Parts: sequence; C-alpha cells; structure tokens
Amino acid sequence: MVPTAPLAISIGDPAGVGPELIAQAWCQREAAGLAPFFASGGATVLAAAAKSRGLSMPLVTITDAAEVMEAFRHGLPVLGEHDAEYHPGEPDTQGALFAIASLTHAARWAVDGTAAAIVTGPIAKSHLARQGFTQPGQTEFVADACGIAHHDAVMMLAGQSLRTVPLTVHAALADVPRLITQDLIIRRVRIVAASLERDFGLESPRIAITGLNPHAGEDGRMGTEDRDVIAPAIAALRAEGLTVSGPHPADALFAAHERGKYDVAICMYHDQALIPIKTLDFDQGVNVTLGLPIIRTSPDHGTAFGIAGRGTASAGATIAAIRMAGACAGHRAARL
Amino acid sequence: MVPTAPLAISIGDPAGVGPELIAQAWCQREAAGLAPFFASGGATVLAAAAKSRGLSMPLVTITDAAEVMEAFRHGLPVLGEHDAEYHPGEPDTQGALFAIASLTHAARWAVDGTAAAIVTGPIAKSHLARQGFTQPGQTEFVADACGIAHHDAVMMLAGQSLRTVPLTVHAALADVPRLITQDLIIRRVRIVAASLERDFGLESPRIAITGLNPHAGEDGRMGTEDRDVIAPAIAALRAEGLTVSGPHPADALFAAHERGKYDVAICMYHDQALIPIKTLDFDQGVNVTLGLPIIRTSPDHGTAFGIAGRGTASAGATIAAIRMAGACAGHRAARL
Repeated sequence: MVPTAPLAISIGDPAGVGPELIAQAWCQREAAGLAPFFASGGATVLAAAAKSRGLSMPLVTITDAAEVMEAFRHGLPVLGEHDAEYHPGEPDTQGALFAIASLTHAARWAVDGTAAAIVTGPIAKSHLARQGFTQPGQTEFVADACGIAHHDAVMMLAGQSLRTVPLTVHAALADVPRLITQDLIIRRVRIVAASLERDFGLESPRIAITGLNPHAGEDGRMGTEDRDVIAPAIAALRAEGLTVSGPHPADALFAAHERGKYDVAICMYHDQALIPIKTLDFDQGVNVTLGLPIIRTSPDHGTAFGIAGRGTASAGATIAAIRMAGACAGHRAARL
Repeated sequence: MVPTAPLAISIGDPAGVGPELIAQAWCQREAAGLAPFFASGGATVLAAAAKSRGLSMPLVTITDAAEVMEAFRHGLPVLGEHDAEYHPGEPDTQGALFAIASLTHAARWAVDGTAAAIVTGPIAKSHLARQGFTQPGQTEFVADACGIAHHDAVMMLAGQSLRTVPLTVHAALADVPRLITQDLIIRRVRIVAASLERDFGLESPRIAITGLNPHAGEDGRMGTEDRDVIAPAIAALRAEGLTVSGPHPADALFAAHERGKYDVAICMYHDQALIPIKTLDFDQGVNVTLGLPIIRTSPDHGTAFGIAGRGTASAGATIAAIRMAGACAGHRAARL
C-alpha cells in the first residue's frame, strides 16, 4: 500500500550532513524505492549541498503538498520559504534558526495530515538550545507537537536485521537499576506492541526483553532486578495476551541465529540497545519514534559537522529512514 | 614460528559438546591449520563422541607428550588414563570428576612445559562445584595452578575482527560503577598490553577504553565516572608510554570502520564486552586468559547439554581456540 500523502523531511542543521544526504536520497529514489517526499524549506541550502556533492538534483518549488507527487519525478520538491545560507562545517545562529523552522513546519504538516510522515534531519541540540529550542531533542519536540507526554514517545532503533528499544536513554549507568520499574516496562512495551502492529504490519509482534544483569542475573545470583522487576513485568504483559519473552541474557540475544526469533528487543539501557545496532549497521540505523499519532523516523547519526560538504558522508541511514517512513505510512494507509 | 611443544586440551564435561567438538577439530586440523594437540584423558568419551558425530577419528594412546608430533598425523593423541562413559546430555558425578581430572592434568602439563598451552573444554560450574571444584570457573582454576591471584588473570574475548576485555565480569550492574577504579583499570591494562606484546606479537598494542555511561558521559552530563575515573587512568597509562585511547562512547566503538583502529577494547562490564563479540561472532568466540605464565584459551560457550551428541554443535569456537593457542605459543617460541 502506498502512503496517502507525501513524506515531509526537515533539513536539520544546514551546516551538518543533513542537506547533502537528502539530495543524495532524492538521486537514489528509484533504486531505493522511496515514496515521494518533500523538503521543509531550505531551497538555497539544498541546491548548494547537492552541488558540493556533485549531484544533479533540480529543485521544484511548490506551494501545496498536493503538487509533490508530480514534482517529485522531476526534482526535489521544496515547500516553504524558510531558508539559510550553506556553510558546511560552520554552524551559526542563522542556521540554527532555520533548523528549528524546518522542523517546526514539517511537524505541523505531519500533524495536520499534509504529510504522511516526518523524517527529521540531524541537529546539534546544544547549538539549537541557544536559539530557544527548549526540548532535550527532536523526539520530545515532535511529541510536544502531537500533544504526547515525553515519556510515552518511545525511541526504537532499527537496523537491517534488528530492532531495539532502550527503556532508559540518556541516564547515567548508576541510575539505570532504579529507573527500571515494572510500570515503565509494561507501559513502554504496550506502546511498542501497538506501534509494531499499526505501523509495521506485524500482528502479535514477538517482543524479547533483556535482563539488566550478566546472564539475566542467574536467578538472583548476579543482581535481583531480572528476577524481581523484569520477570514479573513480563508475566503481566503475557497475561494481557502480548507475545513477550525474557528476561534474556543480553550478550547472546543479538547473535545472528537469535535475531530472527523476535521482532523487537526491549533493552534496559542505552549501550545495551545501541551497541548491537551500531556494531551491525553503523551506517544504516534508523531512529523511529513509537507512540505518536504521526509517523516519525530519523537517520541515527548526528550532524557530523567535521565531514559536512566533503561528499563522504554515507546516505544509508537517511535513505533507510525515508524508506521506513514510507513503509509505515503504507501500513497505516492499508488499515484505513 | 611453530610451538615448541604440543597443545593440551581438557575435555570439559563429557556430557556436553566438548568431546565431539575436539573430535571435529582433529578432523579439520589440516584445513584449519591447527598445531599438534593432545587430549587430557577421555579415550572412551572421545571415541564415542566421534562415532556419534559420524567422524572417522582414530585415537592414539600415548605415554609421553614427545610422541604427539608423530601420533597427531594418524589420530588424536590421548595422554592419561582418566576417562568416563559417554552419556551426552546426561551429566553425572562420574563425568564431573572426569572433567576435573582432565583439567587438572592439562593445567599441570602446561605449567611444567610438557604442553605449550592449554585449551579448556566447557564445564558446568555449578555441577562441578558439588564434586569439590571450589573455584568460580576454569579461569580461576588455571590461575591457581599458576600461582597467580584471580584478579590478575584477565579474561579477553576474541572474535574474528574484535578483541574485548570486560573489567568486571559476573557483577550485578548496580555494583559496576563502584567496582571501576583507576587502580583496576591501570593494573588490568598493563597486563593486557604486556600479554598482547608477548603472546600476540603486537608491538605497542593499540588499546581503546570504553566509557561507562552513554556517550562516555558527555563530560559529566550523564555520569561522572568517565571523566573522573576512566580519563585519569587513561592519562596515567599514556604517561607510561602505552598506546591507550578513550574513554570512547561504547555504542559506536564496535562498528566495522572503528574495529580496525585498535587491537583490543577494554570494557567496563560484562554485556558491554560480550554483546559485540557474540553479535558478530557467536560461533567463533574465544576466551583467552591473559596475565598467566602459561597460555590458556577456551571456546566461549558452555556445555550445551541440550544438543550434545546430536552432531549439530558448531566446532568454530573450539577450532578458533586451538588455532589461537597455537599462534600464541608460536609467538612465545619466537621470542626465546
């Protein structure tokens, strides 16, 4: 099923690799099977970024998203006049303000249905914070735009053969054990299960939950959280009819012969979820936000200011993020 | 350089996959380029395990390790009369006692120079403990046999493209932050550096050290240990002339394009070190003990009682462990 509307892409920081990777993705749109997408502003930035990468990418300025389907064949459609100059590797105030505007418009279009999904380009949070960007990151920004509480916007990382969800993200490791509660596990897993059904077309998704401790604690011999917190939460979720297994020893769960046994791995902390994704698919990782009324994906990398404009940044994750947004939008359309 | 003596192999629990994998390794000795090795006892077990796997493997009973070089061409040399019956998947007291005897003899031969290295087959610790095996595992048993303190016997995991060392192993995650001290890091890294030079032929090995917290703490914003404990330890090690980098964000350190930049990654806890190894090389992982006067390697898997005797267990890790023991012994011989 094809999406019912085009995908909106926010450019991210114009001094980062975002603009050139969007241009690269448009050039590979047919080979990569990408659904039609349009850029949220940035005509000047995108044209310059495409040129710096040696890409032949016409821009098509549009005034209505309805024009995207036709325009996309001939060039990258750009909606909105927000723009900046292109200074790769040199982030500045104008660029930060543009990144915020590009994200703000794209999120609004996703919320009002103009776009079937939003794909967000990379920003530098500390840099944008100085320009009034008050959220910890784009995930929270998009959650706010949807009226969803931050703790119910669930980050999922997706590689080519693996999806993981970190239950805690930017927490110190010493704080993780007390942050992992039965309530947290149950609430997040319900969101993940519902999102995988709705947006990924998985009926009764198979959800594997890791242990916190080595070997999932070996029945309390190396930490009690696996036995006393995680296992009861799993039992409660199974009682609700969800297909949940664990707690699994995390070291073995991501091996090739295990990855096919579940649709998503729920992990206890940042590195437990991110190490396997980045070890396997460093240049292909997609960050998906579950639990929102809209679809939102993002390449799982930063602005990479250091290599912006040099033509060496991999477009793999951007292409994967656009492809996934289109696939999710297609699944939603199929359910209408 | 070839080893100056053959490698001794302990059989592990005779009800596990150890015996059949040793037989498989002997059958692949030429294709895999394995140095001559001999079994520590277990003639009955090995013959039956080879037969159950459909392997044609003659046994050659020897009375002196000097016979191995000649005997190895014709069959698997077996030294020692300790033995058991073969009941795959059904561990029993006799088997546990045999596993202890096989290990004890093999370690002694390595210590007295009869063997150039010891490769240990998998045991079930809880099972052997009931028969008087008082050490937490084989690593500690071998350390005791060498007169080395347990905390100076350093576990390294080696896959095909990655080596990692967990600074803490079977500790609850909540205990890890306080267990990571500057002294621990400095002491272990010195051992790792010296061992990689001596046994792996790496002059000035490149040692990458992970952070404890997400993004290595981002200068204290997500945990202070990276900044206050790990970074000063790295500075001290560099001041000693060692080639040490970090603290590195652990999630990105194991990506394909990063793995070639260091010879070993020093990790803060079990899953941080084990997830990348098992995600990449589940069936090929080798456990090496550094810091001992002898060379000791082991396949990085357990007894797998559930599949023993069925012929399906992968010999990859056993073959890799034997190959690595031979290579290390060769490096030592070259330094004589």
